Amino acid sequence: MTRPLSVALAGLGTVGAGTLQILRTNAELIAARAGRPIAVTAVAARDRSRDRGIPLDGLRWYDDPVALAHDPAVDVVVEAIGGSEGAARAAVEAALAAGKPVVTANKALLAVHGAALARSAEMQGVPLAFEAAVAGGIPVIKALREGLAANRFQRVTGILNGTCNYILTQMRERGREFAEALADAQRLGYAEADPSFDIDGVDAAHKLAILAALAFGRPVDFSAVHVEGIRNITALDIKLAEELGYRIKLLGLARCTDRGVETRVHPCMVPAAFPLARVDGVFNAVVAEGDFVGRVVLEGRGAGAGPTASAVVADLIDIARNRHTPVWGAGLDDLAPLPSLPMEERTGAYYLRLMVVDRPGVIADVTGALRDSGISLESMLQRGRAPGEAVPVVLTTHDSSERAMRKAIARIEALETVLESPALIRIESF
Amino acid sequence: MTRPLSVALAGLGTVGAGTLQILRTNAELIAARAGRPIAVTAVAARDRSRDRGIPLDGLRWYDDPVALAHDPAVDVVVEAIGGSEGAARAAVEAALAAGKPVVTANKALLAVHGAALARSAEMQGVPLAFEAAVAGGIPVIKALREGLAANRFQRVTGILNGTCNYILTQMRERGREFAEALADAQRLGYAEADPSFDIDGVDAAHKLAILAALAFGRPVDFSAVHVEGIRNITALDIKLAEELGYRIKLLGLARCTDRGVETRVHPCMVPAAFPLARVDGVFNAVVAEGDFVGRVVLEGRGAGAGPTASAVVADLIDIARNRHTPVWGAGLDDLAPLPSLPMEERTGAYYLRLMVVDRPGVIADVTGALRDSGISLESMLQRGRAPGEAVPVVLTTHDSSERAMRKAIARIEALETVLESPALIRIESF
Repeated sequence: MTRPLSVALAGLGTVGAGTLQILRTNAELIAARAGRPIAVTAVAARDRSRDRGIPLDGLRWYDDPVALAHDPAVDVVVEAIGGSEGAARAAVEAALAAGKPVVTANKALLAVHGAALARSAEMQGVPLAFEAAVAGGIPVIKALREGLAANRFQRVTGILNGTCNYILTQMRERGREFAEALADAQRLGYAEADPSFDIDGVDAAHKLAILAALAFGRPVDFSAVHVEGIRNITALDIKLAEELGYRIKLLGLARCTDRGVETRVHPCMVPAAFPLARVDGVFNAVVAEGDFVGRVVLEGRGAGAGPTASAVVADLIDIARNRHTPVWGAGLDDLAPLPSLPMEERTGAYYLRLMVVDRPGVIADVTGALRDSGISLESMLQRGRAPGEAVPVVLTTHDSSERAMRKAIARIEALETVLESPALIRIESF
Repeated sequence: MTRPLSVALAGLGTVGAGTLQILRTNAELIAARAGRPIAVTAVAARDRSRDRGIPLDGLRWYDDPVALAHDPAVDVVVEAIGGSEGAARAAVEAALAAGKPVVTANKALLAVHGAALARSAEMQGVPLAFEAAVAGGIPVIKALREGLAANRFQRVTGILNGTCNYILTQMRERGREFAEALADAQRLGYAEADPSFDIDGVDAAHKLAILAALAFGRPVDFSAVHVEGIRNITALDIKLAEELGYRIKLLGLARCTDRGVETRVHPCMVPAAFPLARVDGVFNAVVAEGDFVGRVVLEGRGAGAGPTASAVVADLIDIARNRHTPVWGAGLDDLAPLPSLPMEERTGAYYLRLMVVDRPGVIADVTGALRDSGISLESMLQRGRAPGEAVPVVLTTHDSSERAMRKAIARIEALETVLESPALIRIESF
């Protein structure tokens, strides 16, 4: 058997320690599948004394991940630090510059600096692998970049953030409000103390930018992603969605049309029969639609030590076997800078929920504003009657443009009888 | 750009013509992802005059697929003839012997002769790729062999035959009996004139044998698969399953325990909440359970020109990029001949539906036979009352062994008050 592949771990948090664990637990099986043993020989982490639940004897220790990347006895660097800047970025850049393959779970780094890093990897002729960066253990990068590579993709849609999906599931199943569900998620370790990266959609947007680049063969463009999170979703909207035959999910959607590429992350109403509607709790899922394969659905755990490390080690096995795929699925010269479409050009149906004063003429004002924007109604529903008091009014529309809807909303918001900011949720069809 | 990869197509049926189509329609995109153009240059098919809906000018024609495999200008042979023997086998053997990579959609060939063919491929150092052989367009081979390769798999379960799944779905949704649903499927082209390969479970068993070999790293062993089809499923059982909270699906199940490997294909009662319960119509799906990744579900179209050709071309792109994976995921020396467990050792719950004469003492006789085999009941349900006439009696059991159940069934069948062969459906838990 060939000499072991010598791996350096930059970072010994959940991902780093998980990687070490799986490489040890399944060492024999991994060696058989990789054609050679894969062994961690060096690590970089700040705190040498912290108990990580796994013996670290015999590993070369570095405080500086850049120095780790330069260790001449290291074949591959696994970056498990996180964040788009600082030590993570420096370690990856140093490893690539030194001509070493890199494996990373870092979606922020890929989404923000993926174009420059790919250039560096391509110049050096080394892999930059990132299966773990999107949807954890689900092999979705490999599916898009290799398994479904014969297809032109029309659309890729995903539940890409387990924290949001857990919160939305709890809100639906237990009738909880957002703040309560978030507190539960934090207690259970599914949400961080500062949860904004997850619940404001940024994490999902990083992942979506990566999927869109792979699916459509264009340079990764995080700045083009329209991002909205789930803070404003209420238990009432979730209940009403259910009555209308929908589920509310935070989706990442990437679509390629003749006019360009749409990339957006926001809460959506999804038909209850659509596969993603039933993906609950911390699970992630991705639906890819290709011109020959049709619709393929991939579902699994999107986070946690085991699933993430499973993806990291899959990348290491590819490297051990010399299976090399260009960072973005094709060489940089073959990527096309397809234009990004602004959110205003989104076309689709809308759910609009207002709290209005129950008084004659209110509905006429609201529907008048929609009519003046050229928006046609599909249904209208007023719940309860309480003359002079606040009642919810729910409207769903036929396909309209986001631009027209925003214009209408501005007028509706200004109505004296409309009491709070309208809840606007886009209805997606599949 | 490197010179084109020159592909020979042995067979121009659905798969062959579909492959030609996709390579032409998406030529530019495929060349970018493959790093070089992929072009069909030669074909072998019996009938030169048949209209296949796609121009065939400029291709070298062979009547004999073995001669095609020896064409010196051919880099890769795609075997799209089908069947475990005859021309398909000869073409694949000839291509491998000539040191050429082979791509095939042929599950029967792989399941029956996969061990010998892998030896030949390994000796020559060339890939034998077969993504299209299992679950059509779903990249399940790549997922098991590469994307999830860091895991020890405990179990792989799949809906592997679209014909059976279509028939069972029709029976459930429209209350049809098997024969009617089969006739519908034949009219729609979802079942062949001689449907036995599909409905008797043989096709699913070929695919399961392949999945089990990949998942557990052992030589493929089709003969060890226990196979039952769906001919005996009745609309009544499907309705009763629904009432009990189950769906009836033809599953392929492969499980690895300390005692060995179970591989079986038979109708199962699946909890309605299990992801496979909702995979309907001609769709296929596979659930893989790994020790680190947890449960991963892959779903998509399992047959048809587009999905199958999508998988064939994914294999061609791997070959164009020199991405090489051993046939069975690890070198032949690294495969372990894990013992196969006989069906008698299956342990689990059972659904048993009898038609009995409605007469005092019948239930006592039946339950006595179960008790004498050590089988404990979970529920018993007699539908309707019609003294002296035939009524259905449904029993579900706690976990029991197949051996004990068979013994009990033999006694129950012999009872004078039991009117037809009992319907026995295994209940699977996940």
